[in-house]
Amino acid sequence: MALSPKLKVIAFDADDTLWVNEPYFRKAEEDFANLLLDYLPAHSIQKELFSTEITNLSLYGYGVKGFMLSMIETALRISNQQLPPALIQEILRIGKEMLDRPVEIIDGVERVLADLQGKYRLVVATKGDLLDQERKLIKSGLLSFFHHTEIMSDKQPNDYAKLIRHLDILPDEFMMIGNSLKSDVIPVLELGGHAIHIPYHITWAHEAIEKEIAHPNFKHMLHISEILTLIC
Amino acid sequence: MALSPKLKVIAFDADDTLWVNEPYFRKAEEDFANLLLDYLPAHSIQKELFSTEITNLSLYGYGVKGFMLSMIETALRISNQQLPPALIQEILRIGKEMLDRPVEIIDGVERVLADLQGKYRLVVATKGDLLDQERKLIKSGLLSFFHHTEIMSDKQPNDYAKLIRHLDILPDEFMMIGNSLKSDVIPVLELGGHAIHIPYHITWAHEAIEKEIAHPNFKHMLHISEILTLIC
Repeated sequence: MALSPKLKVIAFDADDTLWVNEPYFRKAEEDFANLLLDYLPAHSIQKELFSTEITNLSLYGYGVKGFMLSMIETALRISNQQLPPALIQEILRIGKEMLDRPVEIIDGVERVLADLQGKYRLVVATKGDLLDQERKLIKSGLLSFFHHTEIMSDKQPNDYAKLIRHLDILPDEFMMIGNSLKSDVIPVLELGGHAIHIPYHITWAHEAIEKEIAHPNFKHMLHISEILTLIC
Repeated sequence: MALSPKLKVIAFDADDTLWVNEPYFRKAEEDFANLLLDYLPAHSIQKELFSTEITNLSLYGYGVKGFMLSMIETALRISNQQLPPALIQEILRIGKEMLDRPVEIIDGVERVLADLQGKYRLVVATKGDLLDQERKLIKSGLLSFFHHTEIMSDKQPNDYAKLIRHLDILPDEFMMIGNSLKSDVIPVLELGGHAIHIPYHITWAHEAIEKEIAHPNFKHMLHISEILTLIC
């Protein structure tokens, strides 16, 4: 089976598709919970944090800065505003460390990009902070493979429709590759585009869905290197 | 004097060019200082905040979320981590209010956009959070005038070069309109583009420069409506 001959643009999700991301959020959530064990057990703290993040999502969007603000808000709430201020300083430290860490590229990514480059226009299509994602792209050394980066405020069908118009192509000339069925696959198939799902071993609860997809424009892969078997 | 006949794309800065922004930051800085008068006089607090913002700029970028995090960091520092945690809650409230406020369009903007639309491709070129700027564009009712929004992580010559390549035009087919000589005018003229400076009555210290510019591709205006006199 080969990629559609109509295909012009291949868009890659970034976090947990090109590089490791979610484990750092999980680690930060653990570190956060460990700061506040005087007030609640760890699993309850993480539940409270998730609830704060979802409430704030429409106001803050995706990314580390909103996550930092939601950690601070959660810490204030569960301590009934009684926590030592030094713990807030620790939360800032956890977040800044996330923003400043080296980028760990997922195994096989460079080989795949090198093979696809020249055959297709490659773009990064990601949610999250522009500055943070651009910094990661530069740190990763992958920048030169991509035509440009599309930072999307959300990944609803409407956001992809805008992206496809902006790329000046038709939906079936577009393929999205990512680790989230909800954000990278379903909305793209709905518009008539192509999608490949490559699950990552950890998924943020907000992105997790259980769904079997059978669609002629859809492929499921265990590893990004499988794409190479589709290139004629 | 008319606009260059080569002109294809007119890009507008958003904050303090299309809508009011800086006065809300000034108000937030005052509210912030008033929370902490037990520790320092107001002008010293604002100086400390500015210093935190500049230190964090490379990590947080522009926008309200980074501003909120810098306010929290400043409050912890100047209180020597002794402040009542309720004050941190107040800082979160100040920031959320900024993100959630109605958009106040600058007088004359709609008339100008309506007149330029159809004659030129109009885009928004702005720093700041993607979600926040998109929300403001939607709230403003100005969305339909624009081809799309370019969120730039910075406004250095290199960032404009990328934007101009991305728009698929030549530098002298591009004009930037904005309130910052440093961000909206000088880097664009340097690349061979056109620029109009329309100062706003308040400028963030980080953007403020004193400079007289004489350049054939440059115009200075007191009010955005003056653009209408340049359209043939």
